[in-house]
Amino acid sequence: MKEVMLILRPKMYFKTKEALDKAGFHSLNVHEVTGRGREPVQYVLDEENGEIRHRLVAKRLVDMFVRDEEVQDLIETVVEVNKTNHAGDGKIFVMPVEDAMRVRTGEQGLEAII
Amino acid sequence: MKEVMLILRPKMYFKTKEALDKAGFHSLNVHEVTGRGREPVQYVLDEENGEIRHRLVAKRLVDMFVRDEEVQDLIETVVEVNKTNHAGDGKIFVMPVEDAMRVRTGEQGLEAII
Amino acid sequence: MKEVMLILRPKMYFKTKEALDKAGFHSLNVHEVTGRGREPVQYVLDEENGEIRHRLVAKRLVDMFVRDEEVQDLIETVVEVNKTNHAGDGKIFVMPVEDAMRVRTGEQGLEAII
Repeated sequence: MKEVMLILRPKMYFKTKEALDKAGFHSLNVHEVTGRGREPVQYVLDEENGEIRHRLVAKRLVDMFVRDEEVQDLIETVVEVNKTNHAGDGKIFVMPVEDAMRVRTGEQGLEAII
Repeated sequence: MKEVMLILRPKMYFKTKEALDKAGFHSLNVHEVTGRGREPVQYVLDEENGEIRHRLVAKRLVDMFVRDEEVQDLIETVVEVNKTNHAGDGKIFVMPVEDAMRVRTGEQGLEAII
Repeated sequence: MKEVMLILRPKMYFKTKEALDKAGFHSLNVHEVTGRGREPVQYVLDEENGEIRHRLVAKRLVDMFVRDEEVQDLIETVVEVNKTNHAGDGKIFVMPVEDAMRVRTGEQGLEAII
């Protein structure tokens, strides 16, 4: 099981969650965050030393837990909806998960949850 | 050390954090998120094709960092409070943590923080 | 690649993100959370049994993804700004990351993103 974290433009979020649902990826949690990336999407001039500072912009962070073998399909679903070739299209991170539990049933273990 | 992420009903959150405090689990961070699970708790009919879409509902995400040997006790405390046998009772995820630091003391390492 | 999670005082957050930007750490996501730590910063008396309960206070959670060799520099930047020697100075957690993708370019892999 993997945790897959998506950082998305707010305006692409609705379309993405619909596409994920259609592709069978129902379970997700959404955080409203502010963020900045490597490339400044918005920036301000630091008048003290003339340097450019990256401003933070609103982002949607979608956190999902999926089977190992579903990760690539999930990534492709997200890329298909979000790729516009402009800075700010978003990022995807994949992290290991060691255990999980469904509270209602008491099922524990990576296979119990998904 | 493990990161333990709890996805809970908002109305169970107060009781859960009190139970965690009593059980000695003081450290936690709480995120207000919206989420959906495998089973639709709320759903809408997609009129375009007659399919059912999962709606997102408000959830509390509680993020905790605990010793390896405390994970099972933490899980049991959460289940005892949250198990109602209905869809939406919540989920628990356990993830590995490699290092940690307490800023005030400068202590670094998994044992420094907890 | 590592995920580095910073739990900070809200009032130290602006100074921290400026210091991170200057140190070359541009990419980050910020969550507004409430939290409590091992030491009660604020507490309430549980009148039922005379015990002290930890209250939750506003925190900023900053989530970053950096190269393995940058983690220590990142930690030092954060500590330099946030260390006041009082409870609530914050904590830093380091977690493993297995894969990443930049949506715009389609680059995948730990080195593609940073």
